[in-house]
Amino acid sequence: MKFEIVRIGTIFSPYETKEDCPIQGAFAPERKGRVEIFPEFEAGLETIETFTHIILFYIFDRAGEIILSRPPFLDDSAHGVFASRHPCRPNGIGMSIVKLEKRMENILEVSEIDILDNTPLIDIKPYVPKFDYREKADNGWLETKGNREKPKERE
Amino acid sequence: MKFEIVRIGTIFSPYETKEDCPIQGAFAPERKGRVEIFPEFEAGLETIETFTHIILFYIFDRAGEIILSRPPFLDDSAHGVFASRHPCRPNGIGMSIVKLEKRMENILEVSEIDILDNTPLIDIKPYVPKFDYREKADNGWLETKGNREKPKERE
Repeated sequence: MKFEIVRIGTIFSPYETKEDCPIQGAFAPERKGRVEIFPEFEAGLETIETFTHIILFYIFDRAGEIILSRPPFLDDSAHGVFASRHPCRPNGIGMSIVKLEKRMENILEVSEIDILDNTPLIDIKPYVPKFDYREKADNGWLETKGNREKPKERE
Repeated sequence: MKFEIVRIGTIFSPYETKEDCPIQGAFAPERKGRVEIFPEFEAGLETIETFTHIILFYIFDRAGEIILSRPPFLDDSAHGVFASRHPCRPNGIGMSIVKLEKRMENILEVSEIDILDNTPLIDIKPYVPKFDYREKADNGWLETKGNREKPKERE
């Protein structure tokens, strides 16, 4: 069974290459980006400016080969793609929580961004702590892993 | 520009109808479900059992008409689909954080579920508080809205 997804806009960021891009937006709070929603979808943004943070959904359009289990950026042991945020995954859908700085009609200025420049946007949802925060959640295999440089040659 | 998404499994839940389904999983922590990943994707689950919570991505395959701005379940004023979690949205991608109770090979037992029975699964990502928690985030227009019954006749 297959589903067709349409592009609803574009994400612009300071990151031209994968090497430039931070591993997670939470690790690069100061970097700013811009989200342009195609005008035909602008009505869908009504009251989005009431939120401090939003969740962007996009397509990893420059991802490499899909390998179901491999070492991700933050560990040298293998983890399944569904146990990591690896971009090379079935369906290639990315999700990033960003800070919403300002809305100007169909344009959103954001920060805390970890997305490549010119990435196809497919959805936006509000980040709602009362829905999305799980006080008792732990970090799984990431518990002991901090930020680090991306290992060289690793996709 | 269009993208093709494939189904990677199925989500089973106690909810046969939209009326039965809670508005958010955080409001129904005790309800249990089951996620079956197709065997060809099972390798992608490696080490997923180290996480307490996971994020399920799926297709709202029984959603009604897409209207870009309308009153959602938790308010009687209109909000854009990108400023709410409304299921009737462009691309119809749903996202739910669930508690991972147990993994048995390609089957995940979960709780805190708010998804209709027999829903097509398209991705799983680990829920990682150090990536996904924003201490300073607020709830936007949802700040003053608690759980309530779904208004009758509202999609």
